[in-house]
Amino acid sequence: MYTLTNHIGLYTDFYELTMAQSYFFTQRVDDCATFDYFYRKNPFKGGYVVFAGLEELLHLISEFRYSEEDIAYLRKQGMKAEFLEYLKNFRFSGNIYSVKEGEIVFPNEPLLTVEANLIEAQLIETLILNYLNFQSLIATKARRIRDVVGERSFADFGLRRAQTLGGIHAARAAVIGGADATSNTYAGLAYDIPVTGTIAHSWVQSFDKEIAAFRKYAEINPKNTVLLVDTYDTLKSGVPNAIIVAKEMEAKGQKLQGIRLDSGDLAYLSQEVRKMLDDTGLEYVKIIASNQLNERILKSLLYEQNAQLDGFGIGTELITGQEDGALGGVYKLVESDGKPRLKISENVAKISLPCRKKLVRYFDADGKFYRDGILLRDQDPQLTIYHPFHYYKHTDVSNLEYEVLTEQVMRNGKTCIKPKSLKEIKEYSMQRFEQLPEGHKRFISPHIYKVGVAKDILDIRDKMITEVQERF
Amino acid sequence: MYTLTNHIGLYTDFYELTMAQSYFFTQRVDDCATFDYFYRKNPFKGGYVVFAGLEELLHLISEFRYSEEDIAYLRKQGMKAEFLEYLKNFRFSGNIYSVKEGEIVFPNEPLLTVEANLIEAQLIETLILNYLNFQSLIATKARRIRDVVGERSFADFGLRRAQTLGGIHAARAAVIGGADATSNTYAGLAYDIPVTGTIAHSWVQSFDKEIAAFRKYAEINPKNTVLLVDTYDTLKSGVPNAIIVAKEMEAKGQKLQGIRLDSGDLAYLSQEVRKMLDDTGLEYVKIIASNQLNERILKSLLYEQNAQLDGFGIGTELITGQEDGALGGVYKLVESDGKPRLKISENVAKISLPCRKKLVRYFDADGKFYRDGILLRDQDPQLTIYHPFHYYKHTDVSNLEYEVLTEQVMRNGKTCIKPKSLKEIKEYSMQRFEQLPEGHKRFISPHIYKVGVAKDILDIRDKMITEVQERF
Repeated sequence: MYTLTNHIGLYTDFYELTMAQSYFFTQRVDDCATFDYFYRKNPFKGGYVVFAGLEELLHLISEFRYSEEDIAYLRKQGMKAEFLEYLKNFRFSGNIYSVKEGEIVFPNEPLLTVEANLIEAQLIETLILNYLNFQSLIATKARRIRDVVGERSFADFGLRRAQTLGGIHAARAAVIGGADATSNTYAGLAYDIPVTGTIAHSWVQSFDKEIAAFRKYAEINPKNTVLLVDTYDTLKSGVPNAIIVAKEMEAKGQKLQGIRLDSGDLAYLSQEVRKMLDDTGLEYVKIIASNQLNERILKSLLYEQNAQLDGFGIGTELITGQEDGALGGVYKLVESDGKPRLKISENVAKISLPCRKKLVRYFDADGKFYRDGILLRDQDPQLTIYHPFHYYKHTDVSNLEYEVLTEQVMRNGKTCIKPKSLKEIKEYSMQRFEQLPEGHKRFISPHIYKVGVAKDILDIRDKMITEVQERF
Repeated sequence: MYTLTNHIGLYTDFYELTMAQSYFFTQRVDDCATFDYFYRKNPFKGGYVVFAGLEELLHLISEFRYSEEDIAYLRKQGMKAEFLEYLKNFRFSGNIYSVKEGEIVFPNEPLLTVEANLIEAQLIETLILNYLNFQSLIATKARRIRDVVGERSFADFGLRRAQTLGGIHAARAAVIGGADATSNTYAGLAYDIPVTGTIAHSWVQSFDKEIAAFRKYAEINPKNTVLLVDTYDTLKSGVPNAIIVAKEMEAKGQKLQGIRLDSGDLAYLSQEVRKMLDDTGLEYVKIIASNQLNERILKSLLYEQNAQLDGFGIGTELITGQEDGALGGVYKLVESDGKPRLKISENVAKISLPCRKKLVRYFDADGKFYRDGILLRDQDPQLTIYHPFHYYKHTDVSNLEYEVLTEQVMRNGKTCIKPKSLKEIKEYSMQRFEQLPEGHKRFISPHIYKVGVAKDILDIRDKMITEVQERF
């Protein structure tokens, strides 16, 4: 079996390599290029994205190289000796600017910008898209779930339904978006995430009687027992047996932590179970739910159906980022060889913004997010920003508080920001989410956050469009 | 950074470990258990699944162990010394039975069965679900695409929209389902898959003129040039420029391989482009399409809209297995300690089938799949099989040709089948798909393939249900 970390230079779409080889033979190795990473549409019909995946991405970019075995493989694919010689010593030596991991961001914003020679910038494209698209998708999904469940506990249970190893990064991204814990033990080790879990149906089935299964588990794990009560019949068997065991635990000075519902009507069952527990003095026993949950179902359970639930295990819908499954982030050339570059499209909204840029956030008097502005890299943020197509819509933001969101994170191929713990990233993200006005958080028709563009960029773009069209 | 292969024992839901520890302290280390892997519902509203993910799974199970670092991590999680001592020498030493990789399979069939001590069988659960669920999902998606595109070429372009590293296994699974190639260079190395790709928009944008970009690429890659024609304007700029370059290539005795459409109305554009190419004697230049394709769109393009397309690059929808995103395979205890085991559920259809079983396929006179039967492990396949709930529906299959689909693949912890190349698995799968009657391949309301059960199993199940209910 191959291990990716030994072949990281091959973790790329093959066309990046064929283009790189062709840049090489065009004597353009030293051409400087600037690429922007951005996405065009919020996932989940929502109003924002939580940007995630930066830290390990930077590490892998700094490790991006070609082993002897990789070179031999590329030779077999018909790549040429002179270019392969170049790849032998390949290292990414460029600069990268990025918004902070955990930041709340919006469509068409340049979130990460790569400045490097054409070949370097091209070869790392797929890695960037692969890491940022997926982790941002999952962090966003988790944030929506956290927004609904409030102070209740919520853990990632998704490994079994993940895209194999993708489940590892999903666990990390879920924490950035607000998850408390994961069932994925490896992710627990790799990212210092609290791990959680007690029993499955198989534990109960493997005993002749449910009560014996419950009793035994509680005896061995007195401090951490959550009993799964739906193996045979939740209300007739599971909960009555759990109550017996909870009372036996009380007699020993112990407390049953909770019971878990994993099937059936969660609103009805949770209400019945809450009553049964409360009637026997077990107010402290928590009710945890799992089984195909997502933020819309949770919202209905908690705010329409008065479900009595204290915590959640969320699997498939979280780990696969349903109902979208992917964030469509792209990586577009915006400048090369000192000239602004443009991609025109059949679809007007897909025309890219040229030039080296920065992203600036403006705040209202309450410290809430008010507008974002896409500016030229060296531009003074005190200006008027414009709708990207309808210029009669513009806002003077020159008297507002602002922050430049894009900071340099890699200089000459070396990471130049301090590593942060996952906990710090999570806390930063949570705090930023509090600064987002409520209207943008709605699940249905969220208020669209306004992102303006400096007129200078739009003028350059419009001039380029005209020039391109004059050529036909 | 941690490398998974050094910590494979932690690639498990934490509750597998808490249960394992509890089995250990219940003195049940030597209890033998049997678990079945199966799924309940075909993805994509389809009629079948292509079973995939077996080979690497068996390898990882044989490598499943706990390093010193893993043990230290679990100690920090509060696990007990005596159990951790046991984990130090942990190896999976059980037996596994499975259908062949690439097999066409159906809901509720026991596809893979694990027989081992309770702890061993439990600890590998998540790994099994993680590998088989995802790869079977993607192989099935690819098979549906192959079924539509026929002899046309089709490649996985999805790495940038994958769940990070999940894209590697997706590339492999896509080949099992019928993909010709992948853009994922690492997967190309790891699984010996043909890699494919030529240029992106950035190549074109990085030149001042589109024609210069096309000319240069063709000059450097005369045998393998597919020109992307939508950077500025497909019909006014991209295709006319591609034609000029194709003619220049002809003058040098070379041939342009193809052009690629990546936006706009693919039916209309492909027809126009075909005409433009044919009118200039470039009948041999292929038209490749990409951009959010899936099997339903392809079906409409090719059979309703008469699109003139010769090949496809398929990204997001393939790699994330939309519109489902996950196959809901489960792993259920069916026997332990010599006794059949059952999970009853609020939902009748979710009641599991107890006992050690095998899966048998019966063929009609034309060699097509006719029925599958779930039988006791040692049962003679010449019998009558029954609908799992409505016994008046039954079929005498005793005079039909049959094959036992589940074969032993691991004996005492060692893989006991010959490794197969990915190409062999793909060919097997393709040949099996040809034996599946057409009605089951429909995208809309496919004919349901009938899977019967031996009456002996149903009798045991029904008796157990009665016994469970009598306890309340």
